[in-house]
Amino acid sequence: MPQDRAFAWIDVQRERRERAGLVRRLSPRPADSPLLDLASNDYLGLARHPEVTAAAAGAANRWGAGSTGSRLVTGSTELHATLERELADFCGFEAALVFSSGYAANLAAVSALSGRGALVVSDAGNHASLIDGCRLSRAEIAVVPHADPDAVRKALGAAEGGRGDEAAGGTGAAPAGRRALAVSDAVFSVDGDAAPLAALAGACRAYGAALVVDEAHGLGVLGDGGRGAVHGAGLAGAPDVVATATLSKSLGSQGGAVLGPARVIEHLVNSARTFIFDTGLNPAAVGAALASLRLLRREPERATRVRTVAMGLYGRLTAAGLAAVRPDASVVSVRAPSPEAAVRWAAACRSAGLLVGCFRPPSVPDGVSRLRLTARGDLTEPQLDEAAGVIVRTAPTA
Amino acid sequence: MPQDRAFAWIDVQRERRERAGLVRRLSPRPADSPLLDLASNDYLGLARHPEVTAAAAGAANRWGAGSTGSRLVTGSTELHATLERELADFCGFEAALVFSSGYAANLAAVSALSGRGALVVSDAGNHASLIDGCRLSRAEIAVVPHADPDAVRKALGAAEGGRGDEAAGGTGAAPAGRRALAVSDAVFSVDGDAAPLAALAGACRAYGAALVVDEAHGLGVLGDGGRGAVHGAGLAGAPDVVATATLSKSLGSQGGAVLGPARVIEHLVNSARTFIFDTGLNPAAVGAALASLRLLRREPERATRVRTVAMGLYGRLTAAGLAAVRPDASVVSVRAPSPEAAVRWAAACRSAGLLVGCFRPPSVPDGVSRLRLTARGDLTEPQLDEAAGVIVRTAPTA
Repeated sequence: MPQDRAFAWIDVQRERRERAGLVRRLSPRPADSPLLDLASNDYLGLARHPEVTAAAAGAANRWGAGSTGSRLVTGSTELHATLERELADFCGFEAALVFSSGYAANLAAVSALSGRGALVVSDAGNHASLIDGCRLSRAEIAVVPHADPDAVRKALGAAEGGRGDEAAGGTGAAPAGRRALAVSDAVFSVDGDAAPLAALAGACRAYGAALVVDEAHGLGVLGDGGRGAVHGAGLAGAPDVVATATLSKSLGSQGGAVLGPARVIEHLVNSARTFIFDTGLNPAAVGAALASLRLLRREPERATRVRTVAMGLYGRLTAAGLAAVRPDASVVSVRAPSPEAAVRWAAACRSAGLLVGCFRPPSVPDGVSRLRLTARGDLTEPQLDEAAGVIVRTAPTA
Repeated sequence: MPQDRAFAWIDVQRERRERAGLVRRLSPRPADSPLLDLASNDYLGLARHPEVTAAAAGAANRWGAGSTGSRLVTGSTELHATLERELADFCGFEAALVFSSGYAANLAAVSALSGRGALVVSDAGNHASLIDGCRLSRAEIAVVPHADPDAVRKALGAAEGGRGDEAAGGTGAAPAGRRALAVSDAVFSVDGDAAPLAALAGACRAYGAALVVDEAHGLGVLGDGGRGAVHGAGLAGAPDVVATATLSKSLGSQGGAVLGPARVIEHLVNSARTFIFDTGLNPAAVGAALASLRLLRREPERATRVRTVAMGLYGRLTAAGLAAVRPDASVVSVRAPSPEAAVRWAAACRSAGLLVGCFRPPSVPDGVSRLRLTARGDLTEPQLDEAAGVIVRTAPTA
C-alpha cells in the first residue's frame, strides 16, 4: 500500500538508534515514588509544597482549568498580571511577560528582538530553545565558543565593520546601527556552570548590542535571595538587558517569562508569535508560580541552601575520585565513559533507590554522556550521604 | 549611554504601529466577568465545568504543581500516560504524545517528520505554529493556495520529478523516495472553514507522502461525538496520517498532543526538540484535559450542540445582512471594512456586554480584519439572540 511508504524512513532511523544505544523510552512515574529524586529540576523542592499545590488548586477552582484563549483575547487574567508584576519586581526589572513555557519565552525573546538583517551572537552551549529562537529569527547567527566574552566581542566587532549596507536595509534598526544581541544561558543546563555575565555585558555595550540571558537554572538559586544571576551581576533593570526564565524549575510550576524594559515587553506583546498565537498559561500554573515566588521572597535562605547542597554533593563525589564539574548553581554534572555506561550507571542508581538524570547525545552539545544530578534545596545531609554513596558505589570502573 | 542604543529601534516600530492603528494591549479579565463570552476558544464551555476544575485541583494536590522535568527525565507521570492512551483511543489513533502546548506539538510534528532534504507542502492559511514548524524543519517548503488539493498534488508531483538526487543525500529517507508531507489545519482559525481532508489524503497517497492535520479547532466539534475532522474523514489510524491537537480549546485546559502510528510517536520521543527539551505539561492541566475527554465521551451531544449554535449565529447575522463565512465548525467570522472599524466594532460590543474576538494584521494571513466569534456549545438560544442583536446593532455602516 502506498500509505505504508510515508513513514518507512522512521524504521531505518530507529534501527540506527538501537545500534548506537541511544533509544529513549518514557517511564511514567507514580504519584508517590519511593525513589530519592536527584533528577528533576524542582531545585527548591516547591512543586509539592502544600502552599504551592493549594494555590494551584485554588486558581483552577477560581479562574478555570484553562485560560481559554490567546493572552491578547481572553487568555489574560488578573492573576497573570499579578504574577508578571511581582516577578518583575522580585528580579529587579521594569516589566515581565508570562508565556506557556520557557521554550516559548526563549523563542519569543530571541526571534522578536532580532529579525532579518540583525546579528545574534549565541554561546555554543546554549539550550535548544535559544538555538531554535535563532533559527526562527532569520537573523545572521554567529555561534561563539562556550563562555567566551572575547569571542562575543569579536563577533560583534566583525559585524560593526560591515554595518553600512545592512542598516540601510529597512529592518527597523536605529539609524546608529544594526540590531545586534548576544544570547546566553545564565547557568548551562548540562554542566551547571555559570556564564560570565559582567564580561558579556561589557562586550555588548562596546557595540550598543543587547544582552539576552536565560535564567532557567539561575532564578531561585543565584543572586540575592534567588533573584537570579542577572540580578547578582548588577544587570537587572538595565535598558539593554533582557532575561528569560522558567516557572517550571525553582518555582515548581509550568511556564516561562521574559523580563526587561517596558518597551521590550510591549514590543513582545505586539510581535512575538509564541505569545500572540499561543493559549495563555493555565490559571493553576500561574497561581502555583505566584505562591512559590512569595514563598521564596519570605524564605530567602532557600536559595542559599540549594548552593550549599550542590557543593556538598560535589565535594563527596570528587573526594571519591569521580570527575564532576564544580557547580556554580544547583546542577552537578558527572562524566561517564560512554552512552551505554551512563545508561547502566543511571539504571544501577535506580535499582539502589536513587533517581538521577542521564544525558546522552543528542541532548549534550559536546557529545559527552554524563549523569546530571540536581541538588534540591530540601535534601537533608543523610540523604546527601546516601545519594553520594550510591553514585560512587555504582560508578563504572573505566 | 551606549546601553540606550540597544533597543532604540523598538521605539521606531512602536510609532509605526501606532500610526497604522495596530497597537495591541493586554486587558486582564477578572475571575467573574459580567461579559457574554464569544471570544474564547472554550468551545464546549468546559474550562469552568465543576468536574473539570475539580480534576485540575485534584491532580495538583496529588501529583504536584509542576511535572518537575522533561518528559524523558521526571516529567512523565502515570497521569500523562493515561491521558495519552485515552486520547489516542477516543480519536482512533494507535498512540498519542502530550506536549506543553499545541504550539510545541506542531513544531514537533512538522520539524521531526521532515528535516533537511524533505519536502513540506503547507496550506497558505495554516496557523503560525505550523509555519514555524516549517521554518525550523530546514526542509524545502512549498506554500500552496488555501484549501487546494490539486495544488498539493502538483507540488508533490514536481518534487517527485526531481527525486533522484535528494534520495541519495542520506536524509534517512526510504530508498523508494524522498520524505514528503502535506500540512494543513483541519479547521482554519480565522474563517472557521474546514480543510478538504479526503482529497488531501488522496493527493498525498498518490506520492507516498504523509499527511499532518492540526485538529486544534476540530477536536470536540467535528467527527462522531467530537472525535475530530480526521476521524470524520475516515483517516484516523491510517499508517500515513498524523493529527495534532490542543488540550486548551474544546478540552478547556492547556497543552497539545500529537496522534499517529506508534512508530511516529516513538520517533517524536526520540527526536522532537520541543518534547525532549521542554518541561512536561503540569499535572493540573493533564488532569483537567482527561476529565473533559471523559465528559465528552459520556455526553457526545456536546459536539453536535456546538455546530448547531454556530449555524444559529451565522443564520442570524447573515439574515441581518452581515458578511459572515458559513461555519464548518465552531468559529464564525464576520468581515470588517478596516482594522480601525474592527477595533471600534469590538469595543462597541464590549460596551454592550459582549466579548468578541477582533483579528487584524498581522494575525490574519489575507490582511482582512474581522470579528471572530466562537459559538460555545453552552450558549442558550436567548444568549444567541442577544449576541446577534448586539453585533448587528453595532456593525459599521460602510
